[in-house]
Amino acid sequence: MSKKISIAIDAMGGDNSPDKTIEGVKFFLDSYKNNDDFILNLFGNENIIQEKLLKFKIKTNLIKIISTNSVVSNEESPLTAVKKSKGTSMWNCIQHQLEGKSDISLSAGNTGVLLVISRMILKMMEGVSKPALAGLWPNQNGMNVVLDLGANIECNDQNLVDFAELGSALYKSLFPNERPKVSLLNVGSEEIKGTDILKLASKRLKDLSDEENFIYKGYIEGNNIMSGDSNVIVTDGFTGNIALKTAEGTAKFITKNLKNSLTENFITKISLLFSYFALKKFKKKLDPRKYNGAIFLGLNGPVVKSHGGIDSLGFYHSLDLCYKIIKGNLISQIKKNLKHSKSV
Amino acid sequence: MSKKISIAIDAMGGDNSPDKTIEGVKFFLDSYKNNDDFILNLFGNENIIQEKLLKFKIKTNLIKIISTNSVVSNEESPLTAVKKSKGTSMWNCIQHQLEGKSDISLSAGNTGVLLVISRMILKMMEGVSKPALAGLWPNQNGMNVVLDLGANIECNDQNLVDFAELGSALYKSLFPNERPKVSLLNVGSEEIKGTDILKLASKRLKDLSDEENFIYKGYIEGNNIMSGDSNVIVTDGFTGNIALKTAEGTAKFITKNLKNSLTENFITKISLLFSYFALKKFKKKLDPRKYNGAIFLGLNGPVVKSHGGIDSLGFYHSLDLCYKIIKGNLISQIKKNLKHSKSV
Repeated sequence: MSKKISIAIDAMGGDNSPDKTIEGVKFFLDSYKNNDDFILNLFGNENIIQEKLLKFKIKTNLIKIISTNSVVSNEESPLTAVKKSKGTSMWNCIQHQLEGKSDISLSAGNTGVLLVISRMILKMMEGVSKPALAGLWPNQNGMNVVLDLGANIECNDQNLVDFAELGSALYKSLFPNERPKVSLLNVGSEEIKGTDILKLASKRLKDLSDEENFIYKGYIEGNNIMSGDSNVIVTDGFTGNIALKTAEGTAKFITKNLKNSLTENFITKISLLFSYFALKKFKKKLDPRKYNGAIFLGLNGPVVKSHGGIDSLGFYHSLDLCYKIIKGNLISQIKKNLKHSKSV
Repeated sequence: MSKKISIAIDAMGGDNSPDKTIEGVKFFLDSYKNNDDFILNLFGNENIIQEKLLKFKIKTNLIKIISTNSVVSNEESPLTAVKKSKGTSMWNCIQHQLEGKSDISLSAGNTGVLLVISRMILKMMEGVSKPALAGLWPNQNGMNVVLDLGANIECNDQNLVDFAELGSALYKSLFPNERPKVSLLNVGSEEIKGTDILKLASKRLKDLSDEENFIYKGYIEGNNIMSGDSNVIVTDGFTGNIALKTAEGTAKFITKNLKNSLTENFITKISLLFSYFALKKFKKKLDPRKYNGAIFLGLNGPVVKSHGGIDSLGFYHSLDLCYKIIKGNLISQIKKNLKHSKSV
C-alpha cells in the first residue's frame, strides 16, 4: 500500500467556520466514498469540531482531530502575525506539514498571515527566487493556471521564469493528460511590446520551451486569457491581481444585468420556465466556487488558501484541489521542471 | 451665433472605410438633424467620398471635403510613420486641427501612428507630464472614464496625478451634471497596499481632492471598477490595458456561453421567444460599440481613436463622443483643473 495523502485543514479559519469547513469535509468524503487513500487532519477546538462532525453526521476513520485553542483573527496584520499566531489552528497546520506529517495545508483564514507564516515555517524551495500565488481560471477548452495573483507586487525576469516553471508543474499535476502551454501577459502580442523585464523573461522562456517542460507560446493579451490557446498565464502579482479581480467584477456585472433583464416582467419570467435548466447549467459552469482555492507555490510544500467568504461547497472544491495536487505529485513535478531549466 | 464645433474626420482609416466612416457620418447627421452647430471636415479622396455620400444619400452643407490622396497603412510602424505619413488623410486631420480649423480629430486608422503624429504635431499641453489614452467603461450607475489604456507602459506619481486631472476634466465635459470621483486602481483598498509610486500619487491626490476639481475616493480594486462608487479610474498604461482587455475577454466568454446555453435545444429556443426583447435590451446595454472611441488627452487639442475593426454604428458613437467633448469644453476644463492643482 502506498503512503496516504495527508491534508492539514485549518478548521477554524474564514467566515462561518467551523460549520463551513466541516460541511466542506462532508462533501469531500461523500465524493470520495470509495477511496481511503487520504487522511484529513482537522486543526481547531476538539469539542467544537466533534460537535460539528455529529451535526453533519460524519463518521469515518479518515479524520484526525488535532486540538488547538486559538485562531488567527481576520484583523491580524501580517507584520505582527509571526509573534501572535503561534499555536493557532493555522500555524499548527503548517508546522504539521513541516514535520512531514501532512503533505499540504488548507486554510480559509487571514490571507496575509497565511502567506507570511507559510513562508517563514516551510521556507523557500531551493532554486526558486520568489514564491507565487496561483489560481484556476476557466477558459474555452477547460482551465487555466494563472500566477502570480498578488504575492509579489514587483517582479524581475527571473521571478517570471520561475513562475512559469511552478505554474506548468501545477498544471501537470492537476491535468496529467494535458500539456502546459505558457504565455506571458502583456499589452500586445508583438515582440517589441511591454517592459524590458517582460522582454528578458520572454527570451529566456523561448529557450526553455520544449515538449517535456512546457511549450512557450509568447505574449498573450488580456482579451485572450480565456481563449484556451494557452493554459498557464504568467504575470507579476500586481497585474495578475488586477486582471483576476477585473474579470470577477465584469462577470458579476454581466450576470446581475442579465438577471434583471430576465426577471423584469411577466413575459420574461415565462421564458425562464423554458430556459431554467439551460441557465442552471450555464451558471454552474461559471460558478466561482468551482475555482475556489489559490495555491501558494515555491515553498517546501504547497499551501492552499480558500476564499474567506466562500460557503461550504466552495471550501469542498479547495479541499478537492489539495487532494488532486498531491495525487498529481506537484513537488516532484516542480523539481523536475527546475532541474530541466538549470540544464538549459 | 457662437462658433461652430469643427471635427476633422479621417474618412479613409480603419477596416471597410470609407463606407464605414461615411455611414457613421450619416447616423450622426440623422441623430442631430435639428442642429447646425457643427462642421464635419472629411479627409480623403474627394471622388470616392462624393460617391459614398451619394450612396448613403447624404445631402448637407454641414460637411466639407478636404481631398488627400494617401492613407496610413495598417502595417506602418510608428517608428517610420513620421517620415511616411505626411500628406495622408490622418496627418492632414491633425494638421488642420493644429491650424485651428478644427477642434478635434477622429480616426479609425493605425493606433501607433496616430499617437506618434498627434503628439508630434499638436505637442504636449503646458503643465502635463505625459499624455494618456482614456476610454469609457460602463458601471452600475452610468459610465466610467478609465485612463491610461496603453499610451504609457511605465508611469511615475506625477503622471498618475496628471491622469486624474485629465480624466476628471474629460468626465466633466461629457457629464456636466455629475461630479468626478477619482480612484487609483490597486491590489487592495488599504493605505499600505501597492507600489511606492501609487502611495505617493495617492497622498498627492488626497491633497488635491475638493468639490470643484474632483473628489478623491482612494484605492479601488479590479472587482469594483464597475460598482459605480467611482467614475474616473486612474492607472498606468500597462495595467489599464490589461484590465480593459481582460474585461472585454470575460464579457465575450460569458455571452458566448450564455448564447450556447440558450440555443442548445428546442425547449431553450422556445424560451427565446419570451425573452427576446429583454435579451435585446440587455445586449444593447453592453454593446461595445456604445463605448467605442479612446480619447488621447494631454496634447494641445484632443484626438479620438475609433476601433479599427468596428462597424459604422461604432464609428458613429466615436463621432458623437467628439461632438460632446468639444460641446463640454474639454480643453478649458483641463486648464481649470491644472491651474487649480498648481495652486494647491
